[in-house]
Amino acid sequence: MKIDGKSWRTIWPDRASDAVCIIDQTLLPHRFEIRQIGSLQDMVHAIKTMQVRGAPLIGAAAAYGMVLAMLENQADDHLQHAAQCLIASRPTAVNLSWAVRRMQAELAALKAEARIELAWREAARIADEDVHLNQAIARHGLGLLQRLAAEKGRKLNVLTHCNAGWLATVDWGTALAPVYAAHDSGLPVHVWVDETRPRNQGASLTAWELGCHGVPHTVISDNAGGHLMQHGEVDMVIVGADRVTASGDVCNKIGTYLKALAAFDNGVPFYAAVPSPTIDWTIRDGLREIEIEHRDAQEVATMQGLLTDGSVAAVHLLPPGSAALNPAFDVTPARLVSGIICERGVVRPDSLHALFEQSLD
Amino acid sequence: MKIDGKSWRTIWPDRASDAVCIIDQTLLPHRFEIRQIGSLQDMVHAIKTMQVRGAPLIGAAAAYGMVLAMLENQADDHLQHAAQCLIASRPTAVNLSWAVRRMQAELAALKAEARIELAWREAARIADEDVHLNQAIARHGLGLLQRLAAEKGRKLNVLTHCNAGWLATVDWGTALAPVYAAHDSGLPVHVWVDETRPRNQGASLTAWELGCHGVPHTVISDNAGGHLMQHGEVDMVIVGADRVTASGDVCNKIGTYLKALAAFDNGVPFYAAVPSPTIDWTIRDGLREIEIEHRDAQEVATMQGLLTDGSVAAVHLLPPGSAALNPAFDVTPARLVSGIICERGVVRPDSLHALFEQSLD
Repeated sequence: MKIDGKSWRTIWPDRASDAVCIIDQTLLPHRFEIRQIGSLQDMVHAIKTMQVRGAPLIGAAAAYGMVLAMLENQADDHLQHAAQCLIASRPTAVNLSWAVRRMQAELAALKAEARIELAWREAARIADEDVHLNQAIARHGLGLLQRLAAEKGRKLNVLTHCNAGWLATVDWGTALAPVYAAHDSGLPVHVWVDETRPRNQGASLTAWELGCHGVPHTVISDNAGGHLMQHGEVDMVIVGADRVTASGDVCNKIGTYLKALAAFDNGVPFYAAVPSPTIDWTIRDGLREIEIEHRDAQEVATMQGLLTDGSVAAVHLLPPGSAALNPAFDVTPARLVSGIICERGVVRPDSLHALFEQSLD
Repeated sequence: MKIDGKSWRTIWPDRASDAVCIIDQTLLPHRFEIRQIGSLQDMVHAIKTMQVRGAPLIGAAAAYGMVLAMLENQADDHLQHAAQCLIASRPTAVNLSWAVRRMQAELAALKAEARIELAWREAARIADEDVHLNQAIARHGLGLLQRLAAEKGRKLNVLTHCNAGWLATVDWGTALAPVYAAHDSGLPVHVWVDETRPRNQGASLTAWELGCHGVPHTVISDNAGGHLMQHGEVDMVIVGADRVTASGDVCNKIGTYLKALAAFDNGVPFYAAVPSPTIDWTIRDGLREIEIEHRDAQEVATMQGLLTDGSVAAVHLLPPGSAALNPAFDVTPARLVSGIICERGVVRPDSLHALFEQSLD
C-alpha cells in the first residue's frame, strides 16, 4: 500500500546484496527505517524481536530466511537446521511453519547446487501468493461492507484489534484489506483502532498505515470498544488471525475474545479475515490445543513512545516489586464468530472445512 | 492502610494551616508526595486533574472542598457557588454530588458564623463514614471469599479493574476491602491487576497499594483477563463503581463491561463492591441515563512512566495526525452482575432496592 503516494511492500529481495529488506516495525510510528537482513540468524532475530510480525508476513519472512540459509550453506543438515530455527522463532503463527515446511520440501527435492536459485523463486512466490490471497479477501470483504452500508445508509464504523493491515502481511493486509478496498472505491468508512496493549500494534501500526493511506480512523483504549458497541458506534468488527482451527476457532492477539463477546452481546457482526495458510486443519479445539505464547513481562511493564525532544524511549510503568504476566494471544470460540472472510469467500466458521473441501474427521 | 508499616488515609484535615492534605495520586507509583490544599479552587483542581480520584474519595474531597469554601467566605451565595463548582468538577461519580448536597443542606441551616466549625465536623464525619462502610464491605466480601476458598481448596485468584482500593476511598477501599480482609486474616489470595488504560490506575495505584500492604499480585494488560478466565485462572472478579443504578446496573471504569462479559461467559462470579452513597436511586436504566464523561484524548495518546534516569515523563504513542477518543466509564448491565457487596450485605443486583428499602416505582 502507499506511504506518501509511493507503493511499498513490507519485505522484498535485494539479490545484488544477497539480502532481504524489511521495514523495521519496532520503530513505527515514530521512525521509518529499512533493515537489510543478510543471514538466517538475522532473520530469526527479526522475527523474534518483531521487526517483522503479523502471521502472513512472518510466513514470507521465514521463507526468505530459508533463502538466506541456503546462501550460507546448501547442505541437507543446514536446510534442516534452518527450518528448526525459524519454526522455533515464534510459536503461535501457523503460517510460519507452513511456509518453512513448503520451502524445505521443495529444496530437499533438489541437488544442493540448485537450491539457492529455487529458494529465491519460491520465497518470491510465497510473498506474491500472500498478496493475491489478501486481494481476494479484500474483494469478498468489500461485498460485506457494501451490503452493510446499503442497509445503514451512512458511513460505516469498523472496529479492529491489533494490526492486521498491510504491515502484517506482504501487502494489503487481511482485516484491513476490505477497509482499503472500501475506501479506495469511495465507500465512506471510519476505523476504530484498539491501541492493543501491551505492544500497541494498533496505535503504532494500524493508525500509522491507515493515516498514510488516508483512511479516517480514531484510536481508542482496548477498554473502550464494548462501550462503543453498546451505543451503536460500531457496525462491524474485523480482525485478523494468527491461527484458525478447522472448526473455526480464531486465535488472535490477546483481547480479541473480549471484543467478540461484546460484539455478540450487542448484535454487531464479528468477522475474522483469514488467508488459508492461517488455517490449521490439524486442530479442532482452539482453547485446548493451541499453545499460547507468553512474551516477556517487560512488554506489560513498559511502554515505548516519543519524548518531547523527539527521541524514542520506553517508560517503566509498574511499582518496584510488582510482577506482570504477558499472554500474547487468546482464542475466540467459533460460536462468537459471524463469519470468516477468506480468499474463497465468506463463510460461517462451521462451514470453513466445507469451503476448503477438508474432512473434519 | 499501610505504607512501610505506617497507617495512612488518602485525605486528612490540617486545621492548624486551614488546609486539607491529600496524597497526590497522579505521581504514583513513582513519587509519593503529599499536597496541602488550601482553597476551594485548589480542591476543584485536585479533583479535575485526578490528584484525588475514586468515587468515595471524591465525595470526601468535595466535602472538604466545602470546608475550604467556608473558610474563604461563609455567605449563602458562596455556599451555593462552591457546591456548583465542586459538582461540576467530575460528572460521573454520584458520591460527589451526594457529599456536596449533604454539606450544603447542613450548612445552609446554620447562621453564617457557625458554618466553619460545622463544616470541619461534617466533612470529618463523611470521611469516617466512608471508612466504616468500607470495613462493612470488607466483612461481607470476606465471607464470599472464605466460602469460595473452602470450595476451591487452594489460593484464590481475584481479578480487579482500575483502582477501587484504599487510594480510591478514605481508607480500606471497596473492591479491595475484602481482599485486604482476606489477606490480613491469613486466607491466601492473589490479585490479577488490570493495568486499566488509558490512565493506568491498575498498574500505578492498585499494584502500588497491594505491594505496600504485602498482597501478592500480578499486573496484566486489559486484554488478558478473558483469556485467564477461559483457562480457570480467575476465581472471582471484584470491581468498584462510580455509580450504581436502582436496578443494579454498574457504571465503572471503561472496560469493566468487557470483563463482566468474560466472567459471565466462563461462569466466574462478578461482584461490584459498592457503599450506598454510590447508589443513584433516581436512575433505572444505566445505559440510557448515565452521562459518560469523555476525558482528554491526550490520555490515550500518551503514557506516563519512569525513564531510566529516574525522571517521570510522558511518551507520545500515536502517529502524527491520528485522533483518539477517551470515554472514561462504561455501564455493565445488572444481568451480568452476580452480586453487589455493600455495607448491609451481599445481594443480587435486582434486590438492591429491597435491601435498602427503596421503592422501584
